[in-house]
Amino acid sequence: MITVTVDLEERSYPIMIGTGLLDDQALLGKSIPTRQIMIVTNDIVAPLYLSRITSALNERACRVVVLPDGESFKNLSTFEQILTALLEARFERSCTVVALGGGVVGDIAGFAAACYQRGVSFVQIPTTLLAQVDSSVGGKTAVNHPLGKNMIGAFYQPVTVIADLNTLQTLPQRELRAGLAEIIKYGLIGDLRFVEWLEAHMQQLLAREVDAIAYAVEYSCRAKSAVVAADERESAARALLNFGHTFGHGIEHALGYGVWLHGEAVGAGMAMAARMSQRLGQISSADCERAVALIASAGLPIAPPSNLDSSELLTAMLIDKKNKKGRIRLVLMSEVGRAELCDDYPSPVLTSVLEERLGSR
Amino acid sequence: MITVTVDLEERSYPIMIGTGLLDDQALLGKSIPTRQIMIVTNDIVAPLYLSRITSALNERACRVVVLPDGESFKNLSTFEQILTALLEARFERSCTVVALGGGVVGDIAGFAAACYQRGVSFVQIPTTLLAQVDSSVGGKTAVNHPLGKNMIGAFYQPVTVIADLNTLQTLPQRELRAGLAEIIKYGLIGDLRFVEWLEAHMQQLLAREVDAIAYAVEYSCRAKSAVVAADERESAARALLNFGHTFGHGIEHALGYGVWLHGEAVGAGMAMAARMSQRLGQISSADCERAVALIASAGLPIAPPSNLDSSELLTAMLIDKKNKKGRIRLVLMSEVGRAELCDDYPSPVLTSVLEERLGSR
Repeated sequence: MITVTVDLEERSYPIMIGTGLLDDQALLGKSIPTRQIMIVTNDIVAPLYLSRITSALNERACRVVVLPDGESFKNLSTFEQILTALLEARFERSCTVVALGGGVVGDIAGFAAACYQRGVSFVQIPTTLLAQVDSSVGGKTAVNHPLGKNMIGAFYQPVTVIADLNTLQTLPQRELRAGLAEIIKYGLIGDLRFVEWLEAHMQQLLAREVDAIAYAVEYSCRAKSAVVAADERESAARALLNFGHTFGHGIEHALGYGVWLHGEAVGAGMAMAARMSQRLGQISSADCERAVALIASAGLPIAPPSNLDSSELLTAMLIDKKNKKGRIRLVLMSEVGRAELCDDYPSPVLTSVLEERLGSR
Repeated sequence: MITVTVDLEERSYPIMIGTGLLDDQALLGKSIPTRQIMIVTNDIVAPLYLSRITSALNERACRVVVLPDGESFKNLSTFEQILTALLEARFERSCTVVALGGGVVGDIAGFAAACYQRGVSFVQIPTTLLAQVDSSVGGKTAVNHPLGKNMIGAFYQPVTVIADLNTLQTLPQRELRAGLAEIIKYGLIGDLRFVEWLEAHMQQLLAREVDAIAYAVEYSCRAKSAVVAADERESAARALLNFGHTFGHGIEHALGYGVWLHGEAVGAGMAMAARMSQRLGQISSADCERAVALIASAGLPIAPPSNLDSSELLTAMLIDKKNKKGRIRLVLMSEVGRAELCDDYPSPVLTSVLEERLGSR
């Protein structure tokens, strides 16, 4: 087991990464130290892993909320359902909320933990690649509003993250690819050498070879932890982690949540950001192609869905937390392995990127 | 104008206390420095004061949410209404939410500010005595759940509090009395000399003499600020500010929110806490009578409503954020001017206090 520490002074916490962690009852018992425990999970993950957690905690007051699977349930009504369960169980401020599942479960459960009695302990047990490398690290919690993704939430750090790599073996291939999008992101925005490593190891990652997966997860957690430690509330550096996300959120919002996976939208979004960077003369066409090829090698989309109108996409992108003065702020590449915030670009360039579809190139 | 600073390092903020502050357009403009401003108020306060704020901010993108008056609207659905208004206005993370009104408006608006895009700037303009001396200071925000008061919320500090004492002149007498409950609390839990001052000046306070009101507001803000600065998230000392509140919340919850004002319930709750302290031998019967007489002199109730069954009250009190291991934790008096947390008491003593009604003494 490897432990990566997110360094946030008195709110620092460990991310434990390894195989078989959910079979280690002593580890689970120690990592969730309270008497009252509310496990939030979904109907896909519960049959696979829930019993391992509950049996490790068998002497405690353990309750479970099982949500339907999917981003479309990441809303205020599900949030309220968790709070009602906590109140019906008469759970006290000393309780712990445990998120067992992917990013959706973690985001909702984390927001409920942040708000129940103004904040109770929160433990993340991410079971998807995307959650292990991204959403379970860094304390962003949220639910969606019909008018915008992740618009209602809190910065709220977990006390522990337990990432059992074995859970990735049951993941549908489509979700594995979606997780790879975030891993690729850490390379494209911050580290040419990691891009090279990804180019050399993509087939091992897609085949879920444990050594490759373990390295990619550990690398990603370290990369994200460093950014979060430097800028917990996204005033500056942390915004770079949104590379591909403004385009991606636009796709998700315009399509309707859950049609594309978040990671798929981020894959297409990163390719769009790369093209935009090239058209602005910030990177060469070779670098753009290299970035797009890496995304494509993970089996991810590299353009928005063909049935999506560019004006719908633009409208959806106008609702983004990074925007200032009505201007869409984008994270663009300045080279392979480096990114920067940009809101000073000619609008027609953005429009041309939004209009481009596969086949029209 | 007097300024009391709440000292919370990089989140420190001023409480400005004075007469005529809402007529000072320059002060309002400077205190709310952003371009996009969402004012949250209610249908009682809006006709009285809203135009002063909007005219001071006339060049800005100013929107208003007017809520119905009353604690019964302090719920998730009102919270969502504010978030929807923010999204419909396409307000960005750089916006400000302004609470113009009493404790209910401040609690809901503050929670919405805490959660919109994971946190935007928040300014409190309290227009009731209770809000000026208590709820607008210290960063507790929340909404109620059908199963418990203030159970969904956040610790979220405002950037500025503007307390215009002139607004108290339009306050119904019943609300003035309710505000006095929290002022009396600061004396009973922390300062015998302030108790003496209150005993000497209660008639001036009830007559809204500006000097007396100004001193009481300033004293209360200083007292609360000191506690909050030492213990922002209520791990220890801050819990003493809940003197009278566990009983009081029980009354409010069992009666239904809005039947009694919060301050009325706290008045009765403090009298009950004093009686409980006496029965446990912690204070003399003379001290108990002195505390109860002070509460009564403000025209506040000193016992629960006669139609409320003690077992309903007990059930309602079992849902409280201070409780540990199912034990109701109470703040009790150890002398006039000193309080302490207590969860080690014989249950029959609590039962006898809950059963006592006026007329049965």
